[in-house]
Amino acid sequence: MTNTPRFGDAAIVDVEFGVDVRVVRPVNLYGCRIGDRSFVGPFVEIQRGAVIGSDCRIQSHAFICDLVTIGDRCFVGHGVMFVNDTFRTGGPAGRDRAKWGATTIGNDVSIGSNATILPVKIADGVVVGAGAVVTRDLLVKGIYAGNPARLLRAL
Amino acid sequence: MTNTPRFGDAAIVDVEFGVDVRVVRPVNLYGCRIGDRSFVGPFVEIQRGAVIGSDCRIQSHAFICDLVTIGDRCFVGHGVMFVNDTFRTGGPAGRDRAKWGATTIGNDVSIGSNATILPVKIADGVVVGAGAVVTRDLLVKGIYAGNPARLLRAL
Amino acid sequence: MTNTPRFGDAAIVDVEFGVDVRVVRPVNLYGCRIGDRSFVGPFVEIQRGAVIGSDCRIQSHAFICDLVTIGDRCFVGHGVMFVNDTFRTGGPAGRDRAKWGATTIGNDVSIGSNATILPVKIADGVVVGAGAVVTRDLLVKGIYAGNPARLLRAL
Repeated sequence: MTNTPRFGDAAIVDVEFGVDVRVVRPVNLYGCRIGDRSFVGPFVEIQRGAVIGSDCRIQSHAFICDLVTIGDRCFVGHGVMFVNDTFRTGGPAGRDRAKWGATTIGNDVSIGSNATILPVKIADGVVVGAGAVVTRDLLVKGIYAGNPARLLRAL
Repeated sequence: MTNTPRFGDAAIVDVEFGVDVRVVRPVNLYGCRIGDRSFVGPFVEIQRGAVIGSDCRIQSHAFICDLVTIGDRCFVGHGVMFVNDTFRTGGPAGRDRAKWGATTIGNDVSIGSNATILPVKIADGVVVGAGAVVTRDLLVKGIYAGNPARLLRAL
Repeated sequence: MTNTPRFGDAAIVDVEFGVDVRVVRPVNLYGCRIGDRSFVGPFVEIQRGAVIGSDCRIQSHAFICDLVTIGDRCFVGHGVMFVNDTFRTGGPAGRDRAKWGATTIGNDVSIGSNATILPVKIADGVVVGAGAVVTRDLLVKGIYAGNPARLLRAL
Protein backbone atom coordinates (compact mmCIF):
# COMPACT_ATOMS: atom_id res chain seq x y z
CA MET A 1 0.00 0.00 0.00
CA THR A 2 -0.59 2.36 -1.52
CA ASN A 3 -0.69 1.47 -5.19
CA THR A 4 -2.41 2.98 -8.18
CA PRO A 5 -5.44 1.01 -9.33
CA ARG A 6 -6.15 0.19 -12.91
CA PHE A 7 -8.92 2.65 -13.81
CA GLY A 8 -11.78 2.24 -16.21
CA ASP A 9 -14.53 4.73 -16.84
CA ALA A 10 -18.25 4.20 -17.23
CA ALA A 11 -18.84 4.38 -20.95
CA ILE A 12 -20.97 3.26 -23.88
CA VAL A 13 -19.11 0.54 -25.73
CA ASP A 14 -20.27 -1.91 -28.36
CA VAL A 15 -24.00 -1.19 -27.89
CA GLU A 16 -26.56 -1.75 -30.64
CA PHE A 17 -29.08 1.06 -30.46
CA GLY A 18 -32.41 1.17 -32.27
CA VAL A 19 -33.77 4.44 -33.62
CA ASP A 20 -34.57 7.42 -31.42
CA VAL A 21 -33.11 6.05 -28.20
CA ARG A 22 -32.45 8.58 -25.44
CA VAL A 23 -29.69 8.15 -22.86
CA VAL A 24 -28.85 10.38 -19.88
CA ARG A 25 -25.18 10.01 -18.92
CA PRO A 26 -23.29 8.95 -16.90
CA VAL A 27 -24.18 5.35 -17.72
CA ASN A 28 -22.17 2.17 -18.15
CA LEU A 29 -23.51 0.27 -21.16
CA TYR A 30 -21.53 -2.39 -22.97
CA GLY A 31 -22.25 -5.21 -25.38
CA CYS A 32 -26.05 -4.90 -25.06
CA ARG A 33 -28.98 -4.15 -27.39
CA ILE A 34 -31.46 -1.34 -26.73
CA GLY A 35 -34.51 -1.13 -28.96
CA ASP A 36 -36.21 1.69 -30.79
CA ARG A 37 -37.39 4.70 -28.84
CA SER A 38 -36.30 3.31 -25.47
CA PHE A 39 -35.02 5.57 -22.71
CA VAL A 40 -32.10 4.96 -20.35
CA GLY A 41 -31.77 7.20 -17.29
CA PRO A 42 -28.61 8.28 -15.48
CA PHE A 43 -26.49 6.01 -13.24
CA VAL A 44 -27.64 2.90 -15.12
CA GLU A 45 -25.45 -0.10 -15.87
CA ILE A 46 -26.40 -2.60 -18.60
CA GLN A 47 -24.03 -5.49 -19.17
CA ARG A 48 -22.90 -7.46 -22.16
CA GLY A 49 -25.58 -9.84 -23.38
CA ALA A 50 -28.64 -7.96 -22.09
CA VAL A 51 -31.35 -7.31 -24.68
CA ILE A 52 -33.97 -4.58 -24.22
CA GLY A 53 -36.92 -4.18 -26.56
CA SER A 54 -38.47 -1.08 -28.03
CA ASP A 55 -40.38 1.69 -26.24
CA CYS A 56 -38.97 0.74 -22.83
CA ARG A 57 -38.03 3.02 -19.98
CA ILE A 58 -34.97 2.02 -17.95
CA GLN A 59 -35.01 4.44 -15.05
CA SER A 60 -32.11 5.86 -13.07
CA HIS A 61 -29.94 3.58 -10.93
CA ALA A 62 -31.13 0.37 -12.60
CA PHE A 63 -28.78 -2.53 -13.23
CA ILE A 64 -29.42 -5.09 -15.98
CA CYS A 65 -27.10 -8.05 -16.32
CA ASP A 66 -26.13 -10.63 -18.90
CA LEU A 67 -28.80 -13.20 -19.79
CA VAL A 68 -31.66 -10.73 -19.24
CA THR A 69 -34.06 -10.28 -22.16
CA ILE A 70 -36.76 -7.61 -21.85
CA GLY A 71 -39.66 -7.25 -24.29
CA ASP A 72 -41.32 -4.15 -25.67
CA ARG A 73 -43.05 -1.33 -23.79
CA CYS A 74 -41.58 -2.37 -20.43
CA PHE A 75 -40.93 -0.08 -17.50
CA VAL A 76 -37.91 -0.82 -15.31
CA GLY A 77 -38.13 1.42 -12.25
CA HIS A 78 -35.41 3.31 -10.44
CA GLY A 79 -32.91 1.13 -8.62
CA VAL A 80 -34.24 -2.16 -10.03
CA MET A 81 -31.53 -4.81 -9.90
CA PHE A 82 -31.50 -7.96 -12.01
CA VAL A 83 -29.53 -10.99 -10.82
CA ASN A 84 -28.12 -13.85 -12.88
CA ASP A 85 -26.01 -15.54 -10.21
CA THR A 86 -28.00 -16.93 -7.30
CA PHE A 87 -24.94 -18.32 -5.51
CA ARG A 88 -26.63 -21.72 -5.66
CA THR A 89 -23.39 -23.54 -5.10
CA GLY A 90 -22.76 -21.49 -1.98
CA GLY A 91 -20.91 -18.61 -3.54
CA PRO A 92 -20.39 -16.61 -6.72
CA ALA A 93 -20.30 -18.57 -9.96
CA GLY A 94 -17.64 -16.20 -11.23
CA ARG A 95 -17.08 -16.53 -14.95
CA ASP A 96 -18.73 -19.98 -15.12
CA ARG A 97 -21.69 -18.89 -17.23
CA ALA A 98 -23.20 -22.39 -17.09
CA LYS A 99 -24.10 -21.67 -13.47
CA TRP A 100 -25.90 -18.40 -14.25
CA GLY A 101 -29.63 -18.16 -14.70
CA ALA A 102 -31.50 -16.36 -17.45
CA THR A 103 -34.40 -13.93 -17.09
CA THR A 104 -37.04 -13.40 -19.74
CA ILE A 105 -39.44 -10.48 -19.39
CA GLY A 106 -42.44 -10.32 -21.74
CA ASN A 107 -44.02 -7.24 -23.24
CA ASP A 108 -45.81 -4.48 -21.32
CA VAL A 109 -44.24 -5.49 -18.02
CA SER A 110 -43.91 -2.83 -15.30
CA ILE A 111 -41.34 -3.26 -12.55
CA GLY A 112 -41.52 -0.91 -9.58
CA SER A 113 -38.55 0.93 -8.14
CA ASN A 114 -36.03 -0.90 -5.94
CA ALA A 115 -37.40 -4.29 -7.01
CA THR A 116 -34.93 -7.19 -7.27
CA ILE A 117 -35.39 -9.76 -10.02
CA LEU A 118 -33.75 -13.18 -9.74
CA PRO A 119 -33.53 -15.45 -12.81
CA VAL A 120 -37.19 -15.92 -13.74
CA LYS A 121 -39.75 -15.70 -16.51
CA ILE A 122 -42.28 -12.87 -16.30
CA ALA A 123 -45.37 -12.96 -18.49
CA ASP A 124 -46.74 -10.17 -20.64
CA GLY A 125 -48.51 -7.41 -18.75
CA VAL A 126 -47.30 -8.34 -15.27
CA VAL A 127 -46.90 -5.57 -12.69
CA VAL A 128 -44.19 -5.98 -10.05
CA GLY A 129 -44.61 -3.69 -7.06
CA ALA A 130 -41.91 -1.35 -5.82
CA GLY A 131 -39.47 -3.05 -3.47
CA ALA A 132 -40.55 -6.58 -4.43
CA VAL A 133 -38.06 -9.43 -4.56
CA VAL A 134 -39.03 -11.77 -7.40
CA THR A 135 -37.74 -15.29 -6.76
CA ARG A 136 -40.09 -17.36 -8.94
CA ASP A 137 -41.64 -17.22 -12.39
CA LEU A 138 -44.60 -14.86 -12.67
CA LEU A 139 -46.69 -16.54 -15.33
CA VAL A 140 -50.17 -15.22 -14.44
CA LYS A 141 -50.87 -11.66 -15.53
CA GLY A 142 -51.33 -9.79 -12.28
CA ILE A 143 -49.86 -7.52 -9.64
CA TYR A 144 -47.14 -9.00 -7.45
CA ALA A 145 -45.45 -7.52 -4.39
CA GLY A 146 -43.50 -8.40 -1.27
CA ASN A 147 -40.32 -10.27 -0.34
CA PRO A 148 -40.62 -12.88 -1.75
CA ALA A 149 -43.08 -11.51 -4.29
CA ARG A 150 -46.58 -13.00 -4.23
CA LEU A 151 -49.65 -12.43 -6.38
CA LEU A 152 -51.79 -9.65 -4.93
CA ARG A 153 -54.45 -9.83 -7.62
CA ALA A 154 -54.84 -10.98 -11.19
CA LEU A 155 -55.31 -8.44 -13.94
CA MET B 1 -29.12 -0.81 -35.76
CA THR B 2 -26.88 0.69 -34.85
CA ASN B 3 -27.93 4.26 -34.46
CA THR B 4 -26.67 7.12 -32.35
CA PRO B 5 -28.89 7.89 -29.34
CA ARG B 6 -29.91 11.33 -28.33
CA PHE B 7 -27.70 12.04 -25.33
CA GLY B 8 -28.41 14.09 -22.27
CA ASP B 9 -26.11 14.52 -19.31
CA ALA B 10 -26.91 14.50 -15.61
CA ALA B 11 -26.92 18.14 -14.62
CA ILE B 12 -28.32 20.78 -12.28
CA VAL B 13 -30.99 22.71 -14.15
CA ASP B 14 -33.61 25.11 -12.88
CA VAL B 15 -33.13 24.29 -9.17
CA GLU B 16 -33.98 26.73 -6.39
CA PHE B 17 -31.33 26.40 -3.72
CA GLY B 18 -31.49 27.85 -0.20
CA VAL B 19 -28.40 29.15 1.51
CA ASP B 20 -25.38 26.99 2.28
CA VAL B 21 -26.52 23.90 0.40
CA ARG B 22 -23.83 21.32 -0.36
CA VAL B 23 -23.96 19.04 -3.41
CA VAL B 24 -21.56 16.25 -4.39
CA ARG B 25 -21.65 15.67 -8.15
CA PRO B 26 -22.49 13.80 -10.31
CA VAL B 27 -26.18 14.40 -9.59
CA ASN B 28 -29.23 14.94 -11.77
CA LEU B 29 -31.35 17.70 -10.26
CA TYR B 30 -33.95 19.62 -12.22
CA GLY B 31 -36.90 21.82 -11.47
CA CYS B 32 -36.84 21.13 -7.72
CA ARG B 33 -36.37 23.16 -4.51
CA ILE B 34 -33.72 22.35 -1.91
CA GLY B 35 -33.80 24.25 1.36
CA ASP B 36 -31.18 26.00 3.44
CA ARG B 37 -28.17 24.02 4.62
CA SER B 38 -29.35 20.76 3.09
CA PHE B 39 -26.88 18.22 1.70
CA VAL B 40 -27.20 16.17 -1.49
CA GLY B 41 -24.79 13.26 -1.98
CA PRO B 42 -23.44 11.79 -5.22
CA PHE B 43 -25.46 9.74 -7.71
CA VAL B 44 -28.73 11.36 -6.60
CA GLU B 45 -31.62 12.23 -8.90
CA ILE B 46 -34.28 14.74 -7.87
CA GLN B 47 -37.03 15.46 -10.36
CA ARG B 48 -39.04 18.48 -11.32
CA GLY B 49 -41.65 19.32 -8.69
CA ALA B 50 -39.93 17.81 -5.66
CA VAL B 51 -39.56 20.10 -2.64
CA ILE B 52 -37.00 19.46 0.10
CA GLY B 53 -36.87 21.48 3.30
CA SER B 54 -33.96 22.90 5.21
CA ASP B 55 -31.26 21.03 7.11
CA CYS B 56 -31.97 17.77 5.29
CA ARG B 57 -29.50 15.10 4.21
CA ILE B 58 -30.21 13.37 0.91
CA GLN B 59 -27.68 10.56 0.81
CA SER B 60 -25.98 8.96 -2.16
CA HIS B 61 -28.01 6.98 -4.71
CA ALA B 62 -31.38 8.40 -3.56
CA PHE B 63 -34.14 9.16 -6.06
CA ILE B 64 -36.84 11.73 -5.31
CA CYS B 65 -39.66 12.20 -7.79
CA ASP B 66 -42.25 14.78 -8.67
CA LEU B 67 -45.07 15.30 -6.10
CA VAL B 68 -42.78 14.55 -3.14
CA THR B 69 -42.59 17.19 -0.43
CA ILE B 70 -40.10 16.71 2.39
CA GLY B 71 -40.03 18.83 5.56
CA ASP B 72 -37.11 20.15 7.58
CA ARG B 73 -34.34 18.19 9.29
CA CYS B 74 -35.14 14.98 7.41
CA PHE B 75 -32.68 12.21 6.62
CA VAL B 76 -33.13 10.33 3.35
CA GLY B 77 -30.77 7.35 3.40
CA HIS B 78 -28.64 5.89 0.65
CA GLY B 79 -30.57 4.27 -2.16
CA VAL B 80 -33.99 5.41 -0.93
CA MET B 81 -36.46 5.49 -3.82
CA PHE B 82 -39.69 7.47 -3.86
CA VAL B 83 -42.53 6.38 -6.15
CA ASN B 84 -45.36 8.47 -7.55
CA ASP B 85 -46.79 5.99 -10.03
CA THR B 86 -48.20 2.84 -8.46
CA PHE B 87 -49.30 1.34 -11.79
CA ARG B 88 -52.81 1.20 -10.33
CA THR B 89 -54.38 0.90 -13.73
CA GLY B 90 -52.16 -2.06 -14.52
CA GLY B 91 -49.22 -0.21 -15.99
CA PRO B 92 -47.34 3.07 -16.05
CA ALA B 93 -49.42 6.22 -15.93
CA GLY B 94 -46.96 7.86 -18.27
CA ARG B 95 -47.44 11.60 -18.49
CA ASP B 96 -50.96 11.47 -17.06
CA ARG B 97 -50.17 13.29 -13.84
CA ALA B 98 -53.76 12.86 -12.60
CA LYS B 99 -52.93 9.20 -12.03
CA TRP B 100 -49.83 9.92 -9.94
CA GLY B 101 -49.86 9.98 -6.15
CA ALA B 102 -48.29 12.58 -3.88
CA THR B 103 -46.04 12.00 -0.89
CA THR B 104 -45.80 14.38 2.05
CA ILE B 105 -43.04 13.88 4.60
CA GLY B 106 -43.17 15.89 7.84
CA ASN B 107 -40.27 17.35 9.79
CA ASP B 108 -37.56 15.33 11.55
CA VAL B 109 -38.33 12.18 9.57
CA SER B 110 -35.54 9.61 9.16
CA ILE B 111 -35.67 7.13 6.29
CA GLY B 112 -33.21 4.25 6.32
CA SER B 113 -31.12 3.19 3.36
CA ASN B 114 -32.68 1.21 0.51
CA ALA B 115 -36.20 2.00 1.73
CA THR B 116 -38.93 2.41 -0.89
CA ILE B 117 -41.65 5.00 -0.34
CA LEU B 118 -44.95 4.77 -2.22
CA PRO B 119 -47.32 7.77 -2.29
CA VAL B 120 -48.08 8.30 1.41
CA LYS B 121 -48.15 10.80 4.25
CA ILE B 122 -45.48 10.41 6.92
CA ALA B 123 -45.88 12.25 10.23
CA ASP B 124 -43.26 14.36 12.01
CA GLY B 125 -40.56 12.38 13.75
CA VAL B 126 -41.25 9.03 12.11
CA VAL B 127 -38.36 6.60 11.65
CA VAL B 128 -38.48 4.25 8.65
CA GLY B 129 -36.08 1.32 8.94
CA ALA B 130 -33.52 0.44 6.31
CA GLY B 131 -34.96 -1.69 3.51
CA ALA B 132 -38.58 -0.97 4.44
CA VAL B 133 -41.28 -0.68 1.78
CA VAL B 134 -43.79 1.95 2.87
CA THR B 135 -47.18 1.33 1.26
CA ARG B 136 -49.50 3.17 3.68
CA ASP B 137 -49.62 6.45 5.57
CA LEU B 138 -47.46 6.49 8.70
CA LEU B 139 -49.39 8.85 10.94
CA VAL B 140 -48.28 7.67 14.38
CA LYS B 141 -44.83 8.79 15.46
CA GLY B 142 -42.84 5.59 15.70
CA ILE B 143 -40.37 3.18 14.15
CA TYR B 144 -41.57 1.24 11.11
CA ALA B 145 -39.85 -1.57 9.23
CA GLY B 146 -40.48 -4.51 6.90
CA ASN B 147 -42.08 -5.15 3.52
CA PRO B 148 -44.75 -3.89 3.77
CA ALA B 149 -43.67 -1.56 6.59
CA ARG B 150 -45.40 -2.05 9.94
CA LEU B 151 -45.13 -0.20 13.23
CA LEU B 152 -42.43 -1.76 15.41
CA ARG B 153 -42.91 0.61 18.30
CA ALA B 154 -44.24 4.07 19.00
CA LEU B 155 -41.86 6.86 19.92
CA MET C 1 -33.46 31.58 -3.22
CA THR C 2 -31.77 31.00 -5.46
CA ASN C 3 -28.24 30.61 -4.22
CA THR C 4 -25.24 28.75 -5.50
CA PRO C 5 -24.47 25.57 -3.55
CA ARG C 6 -21.05 24.57 -2.41
CA PHE C 7 -20.07 21.85 -4.86
CA GLY C 8 -17.94 18.80 -4.33
CA ASP C 9 -17.22 16.11 -6.87
CA ALA C 10 -17.14 12.35 -6.46
CA ALA C 11 -13.46 11.49 -6.29
CA ILE C 12 -10.83 9.13 -4.97
CA VAL C 13 -9.16 10.75 -1.98
CA ASP C 14 -6.90 9.32 0.66
CA VAL C 15 -7.53 5.65 -0.26
CA GLU C 16 -5.02 2.89 0.46
CA PHE C 17 -5.07 0.49 -2.47
CA GLY C 18 -3.47 -2.96 -2.54
CA VAL C 19 -1.88 -4.29 -5.71
CA ASP C 20 -3.81 -4.81 -8.93
CA VAL C 21 -7.06 -3.18 -7.82
CA ARG C 22 -9.50 -2.24 -10.58
CA VAL C 23 -11.91 0.70 -10.30
CA VAL C 24 -14.56 1.83 -12.78
CA ARG C 25 -15.32 5.52 -12.34
CA PRO C 26 -17.31 7.52 -11.42
CA VAL C 27 -16.94 6.44 -7.81
CA ASN C 28 -16.71 8.30 -4.52
CA LEU C 29 -14.01 6.68 -2.38
CA TYR C 30 -12.37 8.42 0.54
CA GLY C 31 -10.34 7.43 3.56
CA CYS C 32 -10.85 3.69 3.04
CA ARG C 33 -8.66 0.63 2.39
CA ILE C 34 -9.18 -1.71 -0.57
CA GLY C 35 -7.15 -4.90 -0.67
CA ASP C 36 -5.13 -6.64 -3.36
CA ARG C 37 -6.85 -7.55 -6.62
CA SER C 38 -10.26 -6.27 -5.51
CA PHE C 39 -12.68 -4.73 -8.00
CA VAL C 40 -14.90 -1.66 -7.49
CA GLY C 41 -17.66 -1.03 -10.04
CA PRO C 42 -19.15 2.28 -11.14
CA PHE C 43 -21.46 4.46 -9.04
CA VAL C 44 -20.02 3.08 -5.79
CA GLU C 45 -19.43 5.10 -2.63
CA ILE C 46 -17.07 3.87 0.08
CA GLN C 47 -16.63 6.09 3.12
CA ARG C 48 -13.81 6.94 5.43
CA GLY C 49 -13.02 4.09 7.81
CA ALA C 50 -14.28 1.21 5.67
CA VAL C 51 -11.85 -1.67 5.15
CA ILE C 52 -12.18 -4.15 2.29
CA GLY C 53 -10.02 -7.25 1.99
CA SER C 54 -8.32 -8.80 -1.00
CA ASP C 55 -9.94 -10.46 -4.01
CA CYS C 56 -13.33 -8.85 -3.34
CA ARG C 57 -15.87 -7.62 -5.87
CA ILE C 58 -17.78 -4.47 -4.95
CA GLN C 59 -20.41 -4.21 -7.65
CA SER C 60 -22.02 -1.13 -9.13
CA HIS C 61 -24.25 1.11 -7.00
CA ALA C 62 -23.01 -0.32 -3.68
CA PHE C 63 -22.54 1.89 -0.64
CA ILE C 64 -20.12 0.96 2.15
CA CYS C 65 -19.94 3.14 5.23
CA ASP C 66 -17.59 3.82 8.09
CA LEU C 67 -17.15 1.01 10.63
CA VAL C 68 -17.62 -1.72 8.00
CA THR C 69 -14.84 -4.30 7.73
CA ILE C 70 -15.04 -6.87 4.93
CA GLY C 71 -12.78 -9.93 4.70
CA ASP C 72 -11.19 -11.57 1.69
CA ARG C 73 -12.87 -13.06 -1.38
CA CYS C 74 -16.21 -11.39 -0.62
CA PHE C 75 -18.84 -10.45 -3.17
CA VAL C 76 -20.90 -7.30 -2.53
CA GLY C 77 -23.71 -7.22 -5.08
CA HIS C 78 -25.14 -4.32 -7.01
CA GLY C 79 -27.00 -1.79 -4.93
CA VAL C 80 -26.04 -3.32 -1.58
CA MET C 81 -26.26 -0.71 1.18
CA PHE C 82 -24.50 -0.93 4.52
CA VAL C 83 -25.87 0.99 7.49
CA ASN C 84 -24.03 2.17 10.59
CA ASP C 85 -26.71 4.38 12.09
CA THR C 86 -29.88 2.55 13.11
CA PHE C 87 -31.60 5.68 14.42
CA ARG C 88 -31.92 3.87 17.74
CA THR C 89 -32.46 7.08 19.64
CA GLY C 90 -35.31 7.97 17.31
CA GLY C 91 -33.32 9.83 14.69
CA PRO C 92 -29.94 10.20 13.06
CA ALA C 93 -26.92 10.00 15.34
CA GLY C 94 -25.22 12.64 13.22
CA ARG C 95 -21.55 12.94 13.97
CA ASP C 96 -21.85 11.14 17.33
CA ARG C 97 -19.83 8.08 16.35
CA ALA C 98 -20.46 6.46 19.74
CA LYS C 99 -24.03 5.85 18.62
CA TRP C 100 -23.01 4.13 15.38
CA GLY C 101 -22.78 0.37 15.00
CA ALA C 102 -19.97 -1.64 13.41
CA THR C 103 -20.28 -4.41 10.83
CA THR C 104 -17.77 -7.21 10.46
CA ILE C 105 -17.96 -9.47 7.42
CA GLY C 106 -15.82 -12.63 7.37
CA ASN C 107 -14.10 -14.21 4.39
CA ASP C 108 -15.85 -15.76 1.38
CA VAL C 109 -19.13 -13.97 2.11
CA SER C 110 -21.52 -13.37 -0.79
CA ILE C 111 -24.13 -10.62 -0.53
CA GLY C 112 -26.83 -10.49 -3.18
CA SER C 113 -27.87 -7.37 -5.02
CA ASN C 114 -30.08 -4.78 -3.34
CA ALA C 115 -29.47 -6.33 0.10
CA THR C 116 -29.35 -4.00 3.10
CA ILE C 117 -26.92 -4.75 5.92
CA LEU C 118 -27.46 -3.22 9.37
CA PRO C 119 -24.64 -3.29 11.95
CA VAL C 120 -23.99 -7.03 12.36
CA LYS C 121 -21.40 -9.76 12.30
CA ILE C 122 -21.49 -12.16 9.35
CA ALA C 123 -19.52 -15.41 9.54
CA ASP C 124 -17.18 -16.84 6.92
CA GLY C 125 -18.88 -18.36 3.92
CA VAL C 126 -22.36 -16.93 4.54
CA VAL C 127 -24.60 -16.26 1.54
CA VAL C 128 -27.09 -13.36 1.79
CA GLY C 129 -29.83 -13.50 -0.82
CA ALA C 130 -30.65 -10.65 -3.14
CA GLY C 131 -33.00 -8.11 -1.60
CA ALA C 132 -32.48 -9.37 1.96
CA VAL C 133 -32.49 -7.00 4.93
CA VAL C 134 -29.99 -8.26 7.50
CA THR C 135 -30.90 -7.05 10.98
CA ARG C 136 -29.11 -9.63 13.16
CA ASP C 137 -25.77 -11.41 13.32
CA LEU C 138 -25.46 -14.29 10.86
CA LEU C 139 -23.13 -16.63 12.71
CA VAL C 140 -24.10 -19.98 11.17
CA LYS C 141 -22.70 -20.63 7.71
CA GLY C 142 -25.75 -20.78 5.50
CA ILE C 143 -28.03 -19.06 3.04
CA TYR C 144 -30.19 -16.24 4.40
CA ALA C 145 -32.96 -14.29 2.68
CA GLY C 146 -36.02 -12.15 3.34
CA ASN C 147 -36.91 -9.00 5.23
CA PRO C 148 -35.81 -9.47 7.94
CA ALA C 149 -33.31 -12.06 6.75
CA ARG C 150 -33.76 -15.61 8.06
CA LEU C 151 -31.76 -18.79 7.59
CA LEU C 152 -33.06 -20.71 4.58
CA ARG C 153 -30.60 -23.54 4.93
CA ALA C 154 -27.20 -24.26 6.42
CA LEU C 155 -24.23 -24.80 4.14
